[in-house]
Amino acid sequence: MPDHRIHDRAVEHSIRVRYSETDRMGIVYHANYIVWFEIGRTEFCRAAGFPYRAMEERGILILVTGVDCKFRRSAQYDDHVTIRTRMGDTGSRGLSFFYEIVMAADGTLLAEGSTRHLFVDAGKRPIAIPREIRDAFSRFVQPAP
Amino acid sequence: MPDHRIHDRAVEHSIRVRYSETDRMGIVYHANYIVWFEIGRTEFCRAAGFPYRAMEERGILILVTGVDCKFRRSAQYDDHVTIRTRMGDTGSRGLSFFYEIVMAADGTLLAEGSTRHLFVDAGKRPIAIPREIRDAFSRFVQPAP
Amino acid sequence: MPDHRIHDRAVEHSIRVRYSETDRMGIVYHANYIVWFEIGRTEFCRAAGFPYRAMEERGILILVTGVDCKFRRSAQYDDHVTIRTRMGDTGSRGLSFFYEIVMAADGTLLAEGSTRHLFVDAGKRPIAIPREIRDAFSRFVQPAP
Amino acid sequence: MPDHRIHDRAVEHSIRVRYSETDRMGIVYHANYIVWFEIGRTEFCRAAGFPYRAMEERGILILVTGVDCKFRRSAQYDDHVTIRTRMGDTGSRGLSFFYEIVMAADGTLLAEGSTRHLFVDAGKRPIAIPREIRDAFSRFVQPAP
Repeated sequence: MPDHRIHDRAVEHSIRVRYSETDRMGIVYHANYIVWFEIGRTEFCRAAGFPYRAMEERGILILVTGVDCKFRRSAQYDDHVTIRTRMGDTGSRGLSFFYEIVMAADGTLLAEGSTRHLFVDAGKRPIAIPREIRDAFSRFVQPAP
Repeated sequence: MPDHRIHDRAVEHSIRVRYSETDRMGIVYHANYIVWFEIGRTEFCRAAGFPYRAMEERGILILVTGVDCKFRRSAQYDDHVTIRTRMGDTGSRGLSFFYEIVMAADGTLLAEGSTRHLFVDAGKRPIAIPREIRDAFSRFVQPAP
Repeated sequence: MPDHRIHDRAVEHSIRVRYSETDRMGIVYHANYIVWFEIGRTEFCRAAGFPYRAMEERGILILVTGVDCKFRRSAQYDDHVTIRTRMGDTGSRGLSFFYEIVMAADGTLLAEGSTRHLFVDAGKRPIAIPREIRDAFSRFVQPAP
Repeated sequence: MPDHRIHDRAVEHSIRVRYSETDRMGIVYHANYIVWFEIGRTEFCRAAGFPYRAMEERGILILVTGVDCKFRRSAQYDDHVTIRTRMGDTGSRGLSFFYEIVMAADGTLLAEGSTRHLFVDAGKRPIAIPREIRDAFSRFVQPAP
């Protein structure tokens, strides 16, 4: 993703690692970081003024078209971890989010990755990102000087 | 559930324990048995001639209104386990399923439990169990002599 | 569980419903309430002064031997729900927890249930509940007048 | 991963989509494809003669250090999908797996991706891939002419 600009504005949200999220290796099962990414973008959209649930209730769905994640260190049960979410440039129909998962206590990087998304309507046909959503995201990540 | 008759006819379906289903105790995380129950009744409905997906596509949904499970022994990653599903008597709008989870190799009982269900329409309003479904289930569990 | 006394003292903890916790019916997949029960008792143990992770690090494990849940109403994505956890009487080797899942906003009951537990050592052999843990739980649920 | 050669030999394993794996959009929740990748490599190791559980029981663990996935089309509840797993070149301490998730009936591509792995000992320290495992994988993917 070298062609994506990542905006500085980050939304942080912290969670406790659940017992159900661990595996027999004693650490968080890796696919759960991908679930945490989704929590991150839920909170990002809420902070930007467009709660994702409200979007869906208006018939605007955001599909996940790609994901990648690098795992640096392991989180364990009951660890307090922070999901830090940033947004990349929006295209006409899609956008990307970038994530860092860190230990809440000392910021140790646990995992980092990104997701790519496509806006679709209730029938899952691609649509242009609605102007008011695009504008709200733009204002959120590029606050006026 | 002492008032429920459990029909003898059982449908068996075997699965491998996934790594994702284990927890830091080294065993299957307990809530996954409840997920396996759902696999059991999916296969029961298929065997009875009414695949659950086909029911939903006709607007007939089966809500879960209750579940209980007793955990006897622990399954581990890659264990081959069998889900044995039986049906209880059907009421006018609901029914129950009964489950045993056993080791496929030697039948060791791992967990047993039941689920209670209510038939609803697409708007989630309770409905009588459609006659053809009730009849199909009856024929399936009480084969003609 | 008619023979179990449920102590009044409750620990409450609120969470947001994750997208991953929903299913194709548009509501929270039922087995996730069982996961939420586990979050409830994690927070109960923390509030009582014995974080469960610290117990495990001392070689004290608490197995789940049984669970039941009644589902009253459906939670949806992004709902803010509260897990209310109470403890039953402790036996020599086991104890029970009781749970109510309610909408955080107005207290609407979504689900209620209980779990039964057995204390075991690192080798998964049953042990008596260590005195200091029993005493701490007793003090927590029955504060001195 | 342009520098990784992907060996032709593929191991296929089919599963049914579980109700629990769907989300409110009516399709499989995206993180579950990452779980399916893990099923794929479990079956790949079994086919190559080194069941992963047996490796772990000898103190050889395979961490996941990275994952990526592109989502092409959506699977739904009860779909029969095939996980096709291939191996890349092994390094001294790590290896990669490559996956395609396709509809079992007609081969429609649903998702494709890869995972990177590091061999570690029981203390999670990196180790060289044991010779017998490396040799077994080599023989498996490059059968003698």
